[in-house]
Amino acid sequence: MINIARLRAGHRQSLAKAITLVESTRAEDRPAAAHLLEQVAGMGHAFRLGITGAPGVGKSTLIERLGAQIIAHGHKLAVLSIDPSSHHHGGSILADKTRMPELAAHAHAFIRPTPTAAVLGGVARRTHDAIVLCEAAGYDVVVVETVGVGQSEIKVSEMTDLFLLMLLPGAGDSLQGIKRGVMERADVIIINKADGDLQVRAARTAADIQPALQLLTRHPPAFQSTASPASSAAWSVPVMTASALTGSGITELWRVLGQYQQWLAADDRFARLRRWQAKQRLWGETVDLLVARLQSANGVQQLLPVLQGQVAAGEMTAQAAATQLVDRLCTPCAPRGDDAPVPRSVEGAR
Amino acid sequence: MINIARLRAGHRQSLAKAITLVESTRAEDRPAAAHLLEQVAGMGHAFRLGITGAPGVGKSTLIERLGAQIIAHGHKLAVLSIDPSSHHHGGSILADKTRMPELAAHAHAFIRPTPTAAVLGGVARRTHDAIVLCEAAGYDVVVVETVGVGQSEIKVSEMTDLFLLMLLPGAGDSLQGIKRGVMERADVIIINKADGDLQVRAARTAADIQPALQLLTRHPPAFQSTASPASSAAWSVPVMTASALTGSGITELWRVLGQYQQWLAADDRFARLRRWQAKQRLWGETVDLLVARLQSANGVQQLLPVLQGQVAAGEMTAQAAATQLVDRLCTPCAPRGDDAPVPRSVEGAR
Repeated sequence: MINIARLRAGHRQSLAKAITLVESTRAEDRPAAAHLLEQVAGMGHAFRLGITGAPGVGKSTLIERLGAQIIAHGHKLAVLSIDPSSHHHGGSILADKTRMPELAAHAHAFIRPTPTAAVLGGVARRTHDAIVLCEAAGYDVVVVETVGVGQSEIKVSEMTDLFLLMLLPGAGDSLQGIKRGVMERADVIIINKADGDLQVRAARTAADIQPALQLLTRHPPAFQSTASPASSAAWSVPVMTASALTGSGITELWRVLGQYQQWLAADDRFARLRRWQAKQRLWGETVDLLVARLQSANGVQQLLPVLQGQVAAGEMTAQAAATQLVDRLCTPCAPRGDDAPVPRSVEGAR
Repeated sequence: MINIARLRAGHRQSLAKAITLVESTRAEDRPAAAHLLEQVAGMGHAFRLGITGAPGVGKSTLIERLGAQIIAHGHKLAVLSIDPSSHHHGGSILADKTRMPELAAHAHAFIRPTPTAAVLGGVARRTHDAIVLCEAAGYDVVVVETVGVGQSEIKVSEMTDLFLLMLLPGAGDSLQGIKRGVMERADVIIINKADGDLQVRAARTAADIQPALQLLTRHPPAFQSTASPASSAAWSVPVMTASALTGSGITELWRVLGQYQQWLAADDRFARLRRWQAKQRLWGETVDLLVARLQSANGVQQLLPVLQGQVAAGEMTAQAAATQLVDRLCTPCAPRGDDAPVPRSVEGAR
């Protein structure tokens, strides 16, 4: 059992246990996890900062530097690290807390790696739940860190308020390796390792990337389909250089984060962002649940291999086979009415 | 109307019209498209070759060179190009047939760009349908080309028999920019532009990548969960260098493609691959259909914004809201008995 009072009081052990509970993939833990999440919902509010970048770009070092500033400004910081895993393997490439030794030792910081899981939707859901728990425990800045090699960046961009993309000097020579889908989600881009010999190259990379950004979207996705164009003044994505190693550029980054928060606070943008995030999350959960219901529907597990064989043999189109499967879940619903005389209501319900 | 006889006889115009029909997003075209696909199912068989790589890696040039060999060996070649589009924009970055002028002019080649669409599942489905149509029209090698910046590579790897990843010299200096998920799907990796000054660098890149491959999977996904380990002798992914510009390495690539086909022909692998492809396709269609049914279910469009608001306000968890939505589709099924007279006749009708 999780002690909610202790969790709210910010006891790390309670928070850690609570996150372990919501991360559990054991079916018997689900009800307790759901109950816990209902209890803590809306208990706290944090600025949610997503940070992504390829392995080796310097995410840990940047989070250490930036985290020191965040804490120095009186905030409590939680860092959740996701390793999206590859499509086939489960091995985590993240090291443990020793990646951020200073933060790990600080009373106002909480660092938590999220274990890799095969199903991305699952990782994303648990990460959101972990954010909510951190907020309930009084952490008012939550950093979600993700390795930019999978699909999880998009998911993380949909659950955070600001999405920071880290690149290396030279990555802008061409757009090779920069995923447009991720680029377009970035609210701030930082070219790290702008120190020593790489300083000039980093500045050139930043200059190279700026025009590419113009080709991409100029609005965070939450603000794209707005009824009031006047209120959707675009956030101009800054492309900055920094060296997490020397600490140069970190103060500027902190200032930019503040500017973004101000921008977000105006014109109802923050509320719209949270509504958009809720929409993404709700839809993700809905699709997961639909699939789970279908998989446990009567006869589906027996029918699936038969249909697969027929589709593989070209005897049936995938569309027709999919209809048969989905009908297992839904067809019986159709002929039911609300009023008593059953046969007539069969007609009426259509 | 599509003239099936003309399509089978290989008339390009009929094939082009048929692809346009299955690519149509207009609801009124669906029945005719479904009918057409049922008619042509299993009519032809092609070796399906997926080619992916970042913009500028030289895919068109390679396809021109390789295509010339394929045609010289007596095959008919269809090239389908997918631009996966970014998450926010619909603009195609593909040029037209002028990218492959020699192939475009050849009587035994058919080149077709697949228009960008917002929904990835849709692109993938239509691409598979286009493959089937090309096969029906007598094309026995179908190349599906995709720009390696989105999620479509994974989809393409699931509908092709061999998945070829193209990289540039230097990309192996670190794994930055090489998506593990895509790497693991590759059956053959080619370092292009191995000419002039870049020759040494290309060789080094190939040498750098080889050990990374060892860390990844050694089996194509179709052969991972096999009941008979003896028959799943791993395909050892070749990492080759080539220059599509000068033509060096293309003959070697053609030979490797032949070796792969031989490997695939043994131990029931080809049948297993097609079953696995069918499984992926069927499941994709099934999820698409489930979502479409839910979206058109009674009350869902009204309920969705209400629930989004409650989730955004923290008044309800996304899980609980998703359950309410999904119940709109499925709950009415639950309270149905087997023994009541009328429902029994409904049972009988299934």
